[in-house]
Amino acid sequence: MTALVTLGEAMTVVAADNPGPLTPGKPARLSFAGAEATVAIGVSRLGHSAAWIGRVGADAGGAMIIGGMRAEGVDVSHVRTETALPTGLMLRERRTADHTRSTYYRRGLAGSRLAPGDVDEHLVAAARLLHITGITPALGSTAREAVRHAVGIARNAGVTVSLDINYRSLLWSKDEAAAELDYLVRQADIVFAGPEEAGLVVGDAPPERTAQALTALGPRQAVVKLGSEGALAIVDGVVLAQSPVPVTVVDPIGAGDAFVAGYLAAHLDGAAPAERLLDAATCGSFAISVQGDWEGLPRRSELSLLDGDDVIR
Amino acid sequence: MTALVTLGEAMTVVAADNPGPLTPGKPARLSFAGAEATVAIGVSRLGHSAAWIGRVGADAGGAMIIGGMRAEGVDVSHVRTETALPTGLMLRERRTADHTRSTYYRRGLAGSRLAPGDVDEHLVAAARLLHITGITPALGSTAREAVRHAVGIARNAGVTVSLDINYRSLLWSKDEAAAELDYLVRQADIVFAGPEEAGLVVGDAPPERTAQALTALGPRQAVVKLGSEGALAIVDGVVLAQSPVPVTVVDPIGAGDAFVAGYLAAHLDGAAPAERLLDAATCGSFAISVQGDWEGLPRRSELSLLDGDDVIR
Amino acid sequence: MTALVTLGEAMTVVAADNPGPLTPGKPARLSFAGAEATVAIGVSRLGHSAAWIGRVGADAGGAMIIGGMRAEGVDVSHVRTETALPTGLMLRERRTADHTRSTYYRRGLAGSRLAPGDVDEHLVAAARLLHITGITPALGSTAREAVRHAVGIARNAGVTVSLDINYRSLLWSKDEAAAELDYLVRQADIVFAGPEEAGLVVGDAPPERTAQALTALGPRQAVVKLGSEGALAIVDGVVLAQSPVPVTVVDPIGAGDAFVAGYLAAHLDGAAPAERLLDAATCGSFAISVQGDWEGLPRRSELSLLDGDDVIR
Amino acid sequence: MTALVTLGEAMTVVAADNPGPLTPGKPARLSFAGAEATVAIGVSRLGHSAAWIGRVGADAGGAMIIGGMRAEGVDVSHVRTETALPTGLMLRERRTADHTRSTYYRRGLAGSRLAPGDVDEHLVAAARLLHITGITPALGSTAREAVRHAVGIARNAGVTVSLDINYRSLLWSKDEAAAELDYLVRQADIVFAGPEEAGLVVGDAPPERTAQALTALGPRQAVVKLGSEGALAIVDGVVLAQSPVPVTVVDPIGAGDAFVAGYLAAHLDGAAPAERLLDAATCGSFAISVQGDWEGLPRRSELSLLDGDDVIR
Amino acid sequence: MTALVTLGEAMTVVAADNPGPLTPGKPARLSFAGAEATVAIGVSRLGHSAAWIGRVGADAGGAMIIGGMRAEGVDVSHVRTETALPTGLMLRERRTADHTRSTYYRRGLAGSRLAPGDVDEHLVAAARLLHITGITPALGSTAREAVRHAVGIARNAGVTVSLDINYRSLLWSKDEAAAELDYLVRQADIVFAGPEEAGLVVGDAPPERTAQALTALGPRQAVVKLGSEGALAIVDGVVLAQSPVPVTVVDPIGAGDAFVAGYLAAHLDGAAPAERLLDAATCGSFAISVQGDWEGLPRRSELSLLDGDDVIR
Amino acid sequence: MTALVTLGEAMTVVAADNPGPLTPGKPARLSFAGAEATVAIGVSRLGHSAAWIGRVGADAGGAMIIGGMRAEGVDVSHVRTETALPTGLMLRERRTADHTRSTYYRRGLAGSRLAPGDVDEHLVAAARLLHITGITPALGSTAREAVRHAVGIARNAGVTVSLDINYRSLLWSKDEAAAELDYLVRQADIVFAGPEEAGLVVGDAPPERTAQALTALGPRQAVVKLGSEGALAIVDGVVLAQSPVPVTVVDPIGAGDAFVAGYLAAHLDGAAPAERLLDAATCGSFAISVQGDWEGLPRRSELSLLDGDDVIR
Repeated sequence: MTALVTLGEAMTVVAADNPGPLTPGKPARLSFAGAEATVAIGVSRLGHSAAWIGRVGADAGGAMIIGGMRAEGVDVSHVRTETALPTGLMLRERRTADHTRSTYYRRGLAGSRLAPGDVDEHLVAAARLLHITGITPALGSTAREAVRHAVGIARNAGVTVSLDINYRSLLWSKDEAAAELDYLVRQADIVFAGPEEAGLVVGDAPPERTAQALTALGPRQAVVKLGSEGALAIVDGVVLAQSPVPVTVVDPIGAGDAFVAGYLAAHLDGAAPAERLLDAATCGSFAISVQGDWEGLPRRSELSLLDGDDVIR
Repeated sequence: MTALVTLGEAMTVVAADNPGPLTPGKPARLSFAGAEATVAIGVSRLGHSAAWIGRVGADAGGAMIIGGMRAEGVDVSHVRTETALPTGLMLRERRTADHTRSTYYRRGLAGSRLAPGDVDEHLVAAARLLHITGITPALGSTAREAVRHAVGIARNAGVTVSLDINYRSLLWSKDEAAAELDYLVRQADIVFAGPEEAGLVVGDAPPERTAQALTALGPRQAVVKLGSEGALAIVDGVVLAQSPVPVTVVDPIGAGDAFVAGYLAAHLDGAAPAERLLDAATCGSFAISVQGDWEGLPRRSELSLLDGDDVIR
Repeated sequence: MTALVTLGEAMTVVAADNPGPLTPGKPARLSFAGAEATVAIGVSRLGHSAAWIGRVGADAGGAMIIGGMRAEGVDVSHVRTETALPTGLMLRERRTADHTRSTYYRRGLAGSRLAPGDVDEHLVAAARLLHITGITPALGSTAREAVRHAVGIARNAGVTVSLDINYRSLLWSKDEAAAELDYLVRQADIVFAGPEEAGLVVGDAPPERTAQALTALGPRQAVVKLGSEGALAIVDGVVLAQSPVPVTVVDPIGAGDAFVAGYLAAHLDGAAPAERLLDAATCGSFAISVQGDWEGLPRRSELSLLDGDDVIR
Repeated sequence: MTALVTLGEAMTVVAADNPGPLTPGKPARLSFAGAEATVAIGVSRLGHSAAWIGRVGADAGGAMIIGGMRAEGVDVSHVRTETALPTGLMLRERRTADHTRSTYYRRGLAGSRLAPGDVDEHLVAAARLLHITGITPALGSTAREAVRHAVGIARNAGVTVSLDINYRSLLWSKDEAAAELDYLVRQADIVFAGPEEAGLVVGDAPPERTAQALTALGPRQAVVKLGSEGALAIVDGVVLAQSPVPVTVVDPIGAGDAFVAGYLAAHLDGAAPAERLLDAATCGSFAISVQGDWEGLPRRSELSLLDGDDVIR
Repeated sequence: MTALVTLGEAMTVVAADNPGPLTPGKPARLSFAGAEATVAIGVSRLGHSAAWIGRVGADAGGAMIIGGMRAEGVDVSHVRTETALPTGLMLRERRTADHTRSTYYRRGLAGSRLAPGDVDEHLVAAARLLHITGITPALGSTAREAVRHAVGIARNAGVTVSLDINYRSLLWSKDEAAAELDYLVRQADIVFAGPEEAGLVVGDAPPERTAQALTALGPRQAVVKLGSEGALAIVDGVVLAQSPVPVTVVDPIGAGDAFVAGYLAAHLDGAAPAERLLDAATCGSFAISVQGDWEGLPRRSELSLLDGDDVIR
Repeated sequence: MTALVTLGEAMTVVAADNPGPLTPGKPARLSFAGAEATVAIGVSRLGHSAAWIGRVGADAGGAMIIGGMRAEGVDVSHVRTETALPTGLMLRERRTADHTRSTYYRRGLAGSRLAPGDVDEHLVAAARLLHITGITPALGSTAREAVRHAVGIARNAGVTVSLDINYRSLLWSKDEAAAELDYLVRQADIVFAGPEEAGLVVGDAPPERTAQALTALGPRQAVVKLGSEGALAIVDGVVLAQSPVPVTVVDPIGAGDAFVAGYLAAHLDGAAPAERLLDAATCGSFAISVQGDWEGLPRRSELSLLDGDDVIR
């Protein structure tokens, strides 16, 4: 039995090392990224089994993604390798120390070929949590069906469904997204959203009102991620606020997904709502204090590291 | 008046620094590449004006390409920027010290949108040389028309046409390529080819026979590039052989295009055939003795560097 | 017609990557720098044509400078190459994270040989702006004459003259500088200065008084650059204050020249004084948020980047 | 069922990037190494399941080792984590381009605590191959017992036993080693050795005589690894010679273990002896053409890469 | 005559360049560290002669340590090289931007073999200051005797004894430490401690009370190091407080030892207590504004650098 | 008593890491170099005391040179620091993998101010060897006098004088050099030269004839360095030939000076002529197998490293 199952796209990342426009000879680092992959890795590092379903190309990037997740203990036995299409890729320019701009190579590539047949019914039905995001249904029609298919299996089997709205404006229009996301929110038990993207589904409102409106659609747990402001949640009708855990920021990308990982791992632990939010914020801070989307996520034994003082020699 | 005009695709290059499979955190370098861009840069470094026609995306890669060629003195005023499509990209894994494997992101992207309207008639008609390759017509139908259009202008204006066959099996089938390349060879005054790709047009044969067969189709100059074996040419009916200029090899990619640049620059100099081949071989050796496709190409004042002894402190 | 013309010295820069004393094996990066070159690049990136006049050596540093500016679209066709003298060089030790110390190799080298004959009369007379700094006249007597010559052409032709006082204590004495700078301020329409260096010409005073005193000598626009305090300007008799645009500081060097570039580009746009100062501050912040003097300067399309939120994946 | 089971020590590796004595500030790369780990990774990359048994510390190095092998698909579920002892470490100085010198931190540390209880009887008994080396019994008395225990299980269950003699003079004396290695050779079906270390067991002799002497002790397959001379084997009484596969050498360390991995994977394929040796030599060449002990090992689909020509752009 | 003599252990340091868990291929830097070595280097850079007594292995790390200190002008003629034991090593993982975790390889290795015979009586007796720390007696019984021996010589000769309590919980128990540290405090003229470690000797109390309690045991100068809060001292009965000197923090490790170096150098200068503390704080800030424990320490001529403004180009 | 005394100029070196033209952002490494410094370091590493006399600037480069030599055990107590002039600097472009081109910043800078007063008479008179090169007298008139002064002291005191002709065409004309070098050869006991530069003094001839001609002027030992051909010497009338010791070449610069260091150290050992040449060739091979001029030089215990096989894990 796998505690958490998720599905989506993971892409090769090429991230320039230093701020500034790209120039011939500029150094960069390779890695991979994907909102759902980050959640799976985060939950696995915190000690719960996790599986990621997706498609990669039969190329160097695909092999890096499979090996990278396997290193983290994520079950990748359900990943399919497309022989004819390359793995998606994201080229990140750090235009200034604070502003990253990405060029995406993903349309029509391996990851977007995710289809209902990729979703193993037994795997999902035996899980404790199914985590989905609003990115996957935006990848294409078969990917959208795959998400709906997985959600259907989960609901039939009584598996808790978690949704991170994660609206991507480059992938679909607001109207198209609003309709699908509204459907998914209504199927979910736990929903995460930033304030703006939540507005697509429940209209613009202050965070607490947004959380209330989300729970009104069905989910018993609604968490509004507020970035450097922390988070506001309504869990079983109770309003909770969470401040960020202070750290030196190295790379702000991936904070939201790390937050979700921390929350869901604590949920799997059976932790109380306030503890889920604290673990979520802790994971978010770990993520941004290390370069890369998922590289900084904490292992179980490390969760308390940010509480303590710096190690002094 | 621009001495050499060429047209094609230039792509962002992401090349892993060190041999081995890609892994998260592996360092890489950014640059750009394109067979025609390498020729334009090489000719410009050797002191002749050169223009490159192509399309790039409105992204960090496109800006790097335009700036990179402008730094080399190449006229990029005819380059178009596509607002809706990214610049093509090539991810290079150095699987071993000797073997590079690339994943291409180019199908349907900015560079392949090259079209006849991009070809400035006055620019081409006033040039001394039009250089084309077999890559550009393989990018798509409008690109193929753009090449034919440029060739038509050149022939009408009495501009010498140079063709590097450069067959790319990932872009089109042998049959489709053979037909188009046969057409282009017949329009060309100078033709370059590797022995295998020449076989598409004139059938497999030893180098000298290949060169003869190519000249039989029209070109007065046919050069068969033999890699580490050097080159064999027939120029105005005379057979010439050229050995490679010995150097320490850092990166074998780009040698063939550098060779063409050296040959064409010497042609523009009015140099004799044997000197053209020597300059071609010298440029090829410069290119492979520096990382990157075009970065190592020699300036005019540097051509004699490989003759001399190492500088001793 | 070139919108902005400037003249001065550009030097090879060797900057240690990491803070700490220099030791054998310490990594460094190569680039180039020069106050006037930074202004030319900044104005060019913002969409106005710019030309830089200067001399470099026939060496690797000189070639880097010419190629580097050409990459940025700056007209370098008036640059002269000295065959017998090396390009100036600046070795930068980052002694601590906050303190850079430079060793200069410039006295008597190529850049200081700038002479009146280098200044193309047609180029300057047809420009909209001539930008000079207090560094160039400090390089030597012929360079001083070159500046005066350029100013004379500009004034005769009705070209707006911009001066950045930029006092360099290593190059000349306060007395010698005060006399020449006083002359140049009186010729200028726009003058930029830090509070201390302005004191050489108008005596020490608070920023607003300093600006008033500068305008009293002739310029209709006087801008006092206050570093982390922003800037204070008097334009056509109106006092304006500008705060810095907040960013993460990567490298404080080059901020002042970037500020001037932003101001002058907005001036060429025909923007109102407040907008000139805002663009100036924005360019200053771009510059310090990227390593290097000019590398971080914004393109026109990027000016608004610092307003927005960070891009979140 | 796991195809190959092996047991031993894996250590953190700190390898200086560049040749020369160590100095403050010198760059290095982290990784891990262990003869048995290399074999497990090599066999896994070639498509056969592999398990590695060993102990690591509860530290950053131990986590890197577990994650690194898991990334490669090696079963690490039988690895124990010692809470009170650090993972062994090897500091590699590349004194010249050709000579690496290591300082070892392994005595009494986590890896040497391997004990019979770590060896899962079911795992070993169900395997097709048990691979052991002469390093593990040299780590300490419990490790020596663990090896004997594993060998006992294998022989009882009819599992093929493979032994790489791998004599380490820093860990034990020649006399102590000779006695134990003699015992292990007699238990083995397949034995690998360099010519000198084989001499400990069968006396010094030319390679073919050495191989004969080894088979005379019991093994039906004896392979003498000759480094840059290739290998000589006697398999089922037949003498075979294998030349090295030519590549550019990046890092000679790990060649012997890679050779063993290739041989054993081909053995698991059911390949003929000559093919086993060819795959062995191919794996050895992959390993030395990439930095690191195991990083360069080929995947099944890559085995033919070294046959072909370089990829030319 | 050597102004300052100290004795202890210096270890090879392997420090990961970037935050995040260790992974194969992660870049690191080599250096060395030791509390007493940092003090010797700091005092030497500030112009006083210093000698360091210790043992290293006959390996690459030992050679780096000797060369590194010699480069700084520290007298290493009393250092012994152990032929059979490696130099200690510390592997530093920067788990997040703010938290470093180290794995130590020092138990029973060369540095811990320090013994009374290593302490040259003439060297110590002729010094102006003997500096010891609470780390050295924790290394083992002979090292403990060496410290007591040195202290005995110093006291007999009227040499001022300085002690930094520096409690290391990994090396000995609180009880064992408390007894030895109590003895050493009573022998010392100057004592430095963090608030917690001082508690081992005088019980937990606020800083001023702690300082008073320390002076009550004998020392006339007691300095409580408060990290980012600065320091509080009692010198000859007078209470002094010192704020930190503000800098950008690059690496917090080594701050405390740098502080001691600054204090002791000022003591050797004959500076007043307030000036000693200011120099101490200045040295601490230099150290944390550069990567490494001792690399950033100021030379005499640099002490005023942090007062001034940043160098603006 | 110092075994070897030498005098000359050492310069900061900025060497691009990778082949290719210099471009903004290109990585480089800092170090220092000087023919005499390399000899002093080499002799010191081989266990003989050595002193280097020269002048550096009061800048980061000067501090690096002093610290760097001190790290190697070279006596730098006779080095003078010029407060008003920078340390010389050499910028090295690796134009291709095989060709390095340098830009020099040395004319009129600190190192060229060497003067007779810098030469400590007692130091030289008590030495066993004085080593000079043909570079130092080319730096300027006072440096030339300093060399003659040192030679005079040595000859009066019966100190063996060693001369490396080292003709630098950038520093003086052939005629000027020939006269001075002729004088110095006649003062020397040991003379080293390349075949071409020896021709300045004794006319062009084959190596053996060149060596004979040099000895005819006075020296009893004449060694002609032949680069990749090894060396030919006449010692006390006996002709000896030495082949190079084979290694992988990383950086050919510094080989000649390393050769001299090895020869002179063996001379100080009292080794026979053939052994001197072997040690010389060994040192030359160490130097070129590591990046940098002197960094790779062997310590006494390492001299035999190149004899053995590679260390295999």
